[in-house]
Amino acid sequence: MAGDKKLVEAITSRDEDFAQWYTDVVKKAELTGYTSVKGCMVIKPAGYAIWENIQKELDRRFKETGVENVYLPMFIPESLLQKEKDHVEGFAPEVAWVTQGGLNPLQERMCVRPTSETLFCDLYAKDIQSYRDLPKVYNQWCSVVRWEKTTRPFLRSREFLWQEGHTAHATAEEAEERTKQMLNIYADFCEEFLAIPVVRGRKTDKEKFAGAEATYTIESLMHDGKALQSGTSHNFGDGFAKAFGIQFTDRDNTLKYVHQTSWGMTTRMIGAIIMVHGDDSGLVLPPKVAPVQAVVIPIQMKKEGVLEAAEKVRDELAKAGIRVRLDDSDKSPGWKFSEQEMRGFPMRIELGPRDIASGQAVLVRRDTGEKTTVPIETIADAAKDLLEEIQKNLFEKAKAFRDAHIYEADDYKTFVKTADEKPGFIKAHWCGDPACEEKIKEDTTCTSRCIPFKGGEPKDGAVCVCCGRKAKHLVYWGKAY
Amino acid sequence: MAGDKKLVEAITSRDEDFAQWYTDVVKKAELTGYTSVKGCMVIKPAGYAIWENIQKELDRRFKETGVENVYLPMFIPESLLQKEKDHVEGFAPEVAWVTQGGLNPLQERMCVRPTSETLFCDLYAKDIQSYRDLPKVYNQWCSVVRWEKTTRPFLRSREFLWQEGHTAHATAEEAEERTKQMLNIYADFCEEFLAIPVVRGRKTDKEKFAGAEATYTIESLMHDGKALQSGTSHNFGDGFAKAFGIQFTDRDNTLKYVHQTSWGMTTRMIGAIIMVHGDDSGLVLPPKVAPVQAVVIPIQMKKEGVLEAAEKVRDELAKAGIRVRLDDSDKSPGWKFSEQEMRGFPMRIELGPRDIASGQAVLVRRDTGEKTTVPIETIADAAKDLLEEIQKNLFEKAKAFRDAHIYEADDYKTFVKTADEKPGFIKAHWCGDPACEEKIKEDTTCTSRCIPFKGGEPKDGAVCVCCGRKAKHLVYWGKAY
Repeated sequence: MAGDKKLVEAITSRDEDFAQWYTDVVKKAELTGYTSVKGCMVIKPAGYAIWENIQKELDRRFKETGVENVYLPMFIPESLLQKEKDHVEGFAPEVAWVTQGGLNPLQERMCVRPTSETLFCDLYAKDIQSYRDLPKVYNQWCSVVRWEKTTRPFLRSREFLWQEGHTAHATAEEAEERTKQMLNIYADFCEEFLAIPVVRGRKTDKEKFAGAEATYTIESLMHDGKALQSGTSHNFGDGFAKAFGIQFTDRDNTLKYVHQTSWGMTTRMIGAIIMVHGDDSGLVLPPKVAPVQAVVIPIQMKKEGVLEAAEKVRDELAKAGIRVRLDDSDKSPGWKFSEQEMRGFPMRIELGPRDIASGQAVLVRRDTGEKTTVPIETIADAAKDLLEEIQKNLFEKAKAFRDAHIYEADDYKTFVKTADEKPGFIKAHWCGDPACEEKIKEDTTCTSRCIPFKGGEPKDGAVCVCCGRKAKHLVYWGKAY
Repeated sequence: MAGDKKLVEAITSRDEDFAQWYTDVVKKAELTGYTSVKGCMVIKPAGYAIWENIQKELDRRFKETGVENVYLPMFIPESLLQKEKDHVEGFAPEVAWVTQGGLNPLQERMCVRPTSETLFCDLYAKDIQSYRDLPKVYNQWCSVVRWEKTTRPFLRSREFLWQEGHTAHATAEEAEERTKQMLNIYADFCEEFLAIPVVRGRKTDKEKFAGAEATYTIESLMHDGKALQSGTSHNFGDGFAKAFGIQFTDRDNTLKYVHQTSWGMTTRMIGAIIMVHGDDSGLVLPPKVAPVQAVVIPIQMKKEGVLEAAEKVRDELAKAGIRVRLDDSDKSPGWKFSEQEMRGFPMRIELGPRDIASGQAVLVRRDTGEKTTVPIETIADAAKDLLEEIQKNLFEKAKAFRDAHIYEADDYKTFVKTADEKPGFIKAHWCGDPACEEKIKEDTTCTSRCIPFKGGEPKDGAVCVCCGRKAKHLVYWGKAY
């Protein structure tokens, strides 16, 4: 058949060359494409549909907590970017500068937003006067630009999509509560929706966001044992408020500075889905985030009654709320099986003349390859149950993998050896001195991923794995994307 | 009460100073805000929620016709922008240029996309090889930048939000069909969802899009009698395909150029909603696009049972699928009434102790101010019916207004006098010569809005209103935003 010309080609083995495997999957599952714009990706329909599902679910979870969406300009005048000292130092080296508008050079150059703290502050300084104007819990969905030197689709590109929440509060306590609340939303979203287990914790001072008092993070583990920072939430205290003059008259009639937070999650999570769940046949999508949850593939499609039966199955599944697609193209069933596997659709339904005669269909799971024969009459229920089962299995599998790749190191020799030989997280005590972080990074390329919320307290008498001084924290270390 | 301090202030009368009225409504309904970024607006929660509803509904209608969403880079290298001659001439004078990335000057400057035809062509040239790869029916939701000198919120700003669809087809017929199909989606969306009547037609060569063979448009009439171009759909023929080398092998094994279209609708439509439906009390939102469709306002809230009854009413309405808000703040009922009117929520429900005692509530329509007393028991049904009624009434009112402001002119004197004295559309015959369009524009500031699909054929023996030569078309003329 004509369709077979374009057979699904084999991809690099995941365990042989993880980086090449990733590139192959991204390309062959048609998630991204390239244009002449160096370092920027095209997100194609199969990739963007995943992002739309991420957006929809995150946005719903945000709105349940009172978040309101807004849109702010994509440009930041240089003087505005420079108002907060730490922040400008963090971002100025990696922004793109607009110097001409229309036919005239600009009087003041502007960068394309790398993040929008400064713009939100500019707005809040105008809009907040009284305690009645608080809290402000704004979020925007947009793209941002950071002029990276080396880029990879979803993981690091000069432009990427994200949401950035920016809030202002009357008290430090409320800001801290919101910072944690949003981090927990990210964590629950990752675990429940993307089936990706995460470690929740706090960044060290060295790793925290430019201008933040505290940065909370969720860290996940990819199949190659590298860590991926998957979502961050920052508490700014009143630092930005002082730099931008964001003051309000409180109930007690005194003038106070607001306390602020920001938090973001990006298209990088599509990279995480690939690297946590994918296998040698391609992408594996957790059912909840999959744009297509089931593909119906008719066998011997031209025989009488086959296509009609397949259409009926599709309609039954659609009615039950399953995102289903019928592949009635003239490609061979074998090609269609490979395509379903490459694109990571959680389940396919094979339906041939003999199945139909016996009132049955075959469900094939993408995660395990397991086949089940089920009565067509109750196929929608069976498919729903199976999708739940797949979602659960993917999370458990990822969690078991992650847990099996968490190591401990009590002395530096063990740390270095583990970092060298065993990809994964290393739990090790730390004195709190950035010099030790720097040395560990130089010796092993490991960075501190986080001080976990659970278990971040040092054990009695524990010492820093690097310098041997008294430990302040237990830290997750890892090589990171 | 404390809330009364910030009483809803009066706005300029709509008929006295339309431009100032518009500015007042945008500001007092809190649709937009300002930052230090000149010419760019902040879309605040009340404005952005309208855009979210527009997006959701348009996106649904798009997807029903097979549209797939993607995301392309926001930057266009100068050499890419220059590939299609007419296109670059149309846009180059009004783009913003990025000349530096990170700490280094760029080898080639890039503009921030004013529209993305060139990028989609760049992608299609890579991705389209065979008739099997067609059609491509892609769309993206994003922001674009055009360096305008004078700006107004929603109507004209240096950055605005929109969707831009870009398609590629095997035949000219299919491209033409898609161009018309999308224009009809815009037209139906405006009339059914935004309650804005439109004229569907074709742009003259002078007014068509830079690089297009044909531009179709929907034109609506604002309350001040000015026209607003509300959505456009372009047929590019194979012009871009030739400039970018987008060829495919057809079924007959010959190499052919694709035929392309593009189509867009923008945040400008929020401006249209304001200018078509608004009145001297502020914004008036058609129920279908209103983020809040009903506000429940308790009277004598502190009396026993009032707040509970109000909460029950809110819950009933929410259960019936109505977007409802309960205003239980400590502001006065009068303040709340004014606020509901200013923000354009279609209906308020007043509920006081006496109402509750008699098992009734008062529904007040935003569009007419009319009050109806209804039994609390059946309030959800009554509210639903009323919302439908308001939606219908707003469309009919706008249509009656529009129709009453369409004039005809058979000779130039009448045309000039009408243009001078009567704000609205002028229907007049035209010979097809751009010189006559130019003269009309110079003499009256009217531009050709469109050659309507219905009634665009000239009457027998009709002559051009400007030069007296034989007429080719009947044209809608108007002063435009």
